[in-house]
Amino acid sequence: MAEFDLIAQYFTRPALAGASAADLGVGDDAALISVTAGHQLAISADMSVSGTHFFADADPYAIGWKAMAVNVSDMAAMGANPKWATLAIALPEIDAGWLSAFSQGLFACADSYAVSLIGGDTTRGPLNIAINIFGEVPLGKAIRRDRAQAGDDIWVSGTLGKAALWLQQRLGKLDLHAEDVAELAPAMHLPQPRVALGLALREIAHAALDISDGLLADLSHILQASAKGASLDWALLPKPQLRHSQLADSVIQQAVLTGGDDYELCFTAAPEQREQLLALAHTLALPLSRIGSVTQAPGLTVRHGETAIELSQKGYVHFD
Amino acid sequence: MAEFDLIAQYFTRPALAGASAADLGVGDDAALISVTAGHQLAISADMSVSGTHFFADADPYAIGWKAMAVNVSDMAAMGANPKWATLAIALPEIDAGWLSAFSQGLFACADSYAVSLIGGDTTRGPLNIAINIFGEVPLGKAIRRDRAQAGDDIWVSGTLGKAALWLQQRLGKLDLHAEDVAELAPAMHLPQPRVALGLALREIAHAALDISDGLLADLSHILQASAKGASLDWALLPKPQLRHSQLADSVIQQAVLTGGDDYELCFTAAPEQREQLLALAHTLALPLSRIGSVTQAPGLTVRHGETAIELSQKGYVHFD
Repeated sequence: MAEFDLIAQYFTRPALAGASAADLGVGDDAALISVTAGHQLAISADMSVSGTHFFADADPYAIGWKAMAVNVSDMAAMGANPKWATLAIALPEIDAGWLSAFSQGLFACADSYAVSLIGGDTTRGPLNIAINIFGEVPLGKAIRRDRAQAGDDIWVSGTLGKAALWLQQRLGKLDLHAEDVAELAPAMHLPQPRVALGLALREIAHAALDISDGLLADLSHILQASAKGASLDWALLPKPQLRHSQLADSVIQQAVLTGGDDYELCFTAAPEQREQLLALAHTLALPLSRIGSVTQAPGLTVRHGETAIELSQKGYVHFD
Repeated sequence: MAEFDLIAQYFTRPALAGASAADLGVGDDAALISVTAGHQLAISADMSVSGTHFFADADPYAIGWKAMAVNVSDMAAMGANPKWATLAIALPEIDAGWLSAFSQGLFACADSYAVSLIGGDTTRGPLNIAINIFGEVPLGKAIRRDRAQAGDDIWVSGTLGKAALWLQQRLGKLDLHAEDVAELAPAMHLPQPRVALGLALREIAHAALDISDGLLADLSHILQASAKGASLDWALLPKPQLRHSQLADSVIQQAVLTGGDDYELCFTAAPEQREQLLALAHTLALPLSRIGSVTQAPGLTVRHGETAIELSQKGYVHFD
């Protein structure tokens, strides 16, 4: 099968109603897009590698969904409206069943967020999925990492640590009840980027990012970029509730604070915004938890009652 | 070494004078750029995989140069002005010497074309380099593949087949003189994207692309998109001249017509443009060869005197 046939069969579709078409899409040397006047283009790239980001035998639908979702999540974290994406993919072989399921998962996620696939590259090699995503944000309205202010509340969306617990189970380090495993799995395989939240936060948040490497590691990026510190309260953190399994506190702490793969948003906002944020949580049917506050003094501590939690590692390390 | 340290050490530099800075570059969830009013953004993605696009033991400087160059070449082929790029790279290990040389080659090419690296991703995995490039083109001025007209001249820049001959030698299929090999090597390792030519062709060419998979395969894309045919004259094609080695006609024909990795531009233009194109060749100090013409009747033939050249394969097949 030639590259063009492969693209035609698996990665070309009629434009979805409501999605942003490119001026010129797949098939030329480059795609062409027009950025809306008064807007900046937000650009992010995320690579998903077999054996690093997913197990080689993982469900190809989920691989496709998640490869797109982690990119969409970067748009959410900037307060950008995701519109277009490119896909560069290296494949060890042409496996029709795998490709069909992969592309269905990829497009299901793209469709959920009205993202159009406008170009890319296919080649032979160890399985590697490199997606670039493009979104629009009104000039000057992007939510950056370097604008957190002392006294800001720190908030997170959703529940943290579910994907990490699923991974620990998959690696044989936990012995969870099958029903709990099934309940945790979607957090790992089908993350739901918080785009609507990100768009609403443009006018509310001072700083934001998405949690991919673990809350403490990612929050540290905000603190470092903003030259601030933070104090979190363990009691306020949104933790997974397992109905059939017992877990040690240390296991839950590691998962919630350092687990990664959450794709929830972490953001800071002035205390005056609390009421508006709780109303927003209601509107979006998405829990928002106020977990601590930004301090002028550097350092990041997590209080557990009267004591501070000690952690050996702050988050996922890409190269060690 | 953590991802952020790696990016800081090898992939972050002060903005180059004359290059287009991003509004917000490496270090946040997304980069932000502003597209010039009245312009479209041209977007292209090319992935370079160890063992597929380059030998595992290839010079890392050349790997970096070429990974960027093949993307810049796509901008040239659209008549777009390359401005920004993202790099997503999977690395099997942190090899400081390799990374240093790779990033030097990558930036040397980016600097040659005033391209700014504005973001990306680094991860662990089999060596894979995925670059997205972004360029600007005035609204409606991009040179597409689907606008060739019957009666157009067909032109190519530079010399074809050099990289293909080098590759045949590297694979042990030729026995070239060492001086000839040295003269062919830069075509393979340090291709020079024809950006200045592409920009000039906006007002001259009807259709254009860059030759990456071989002249016949790539020209076929223009013909298919434009619903036309073509007749080429072998005598007019720009062939490599080897001073110390003898080559069979069939070897040269395969290299020139189907070899690939040329990164020269192939374009069509009305015969009225001949004088202007020859003047442009002089200005750019870049040979432009008129190699045939576009026909209303479909099909692609290469005349050699009174006969037609028969070829078993039209170009590089990505998956077979």
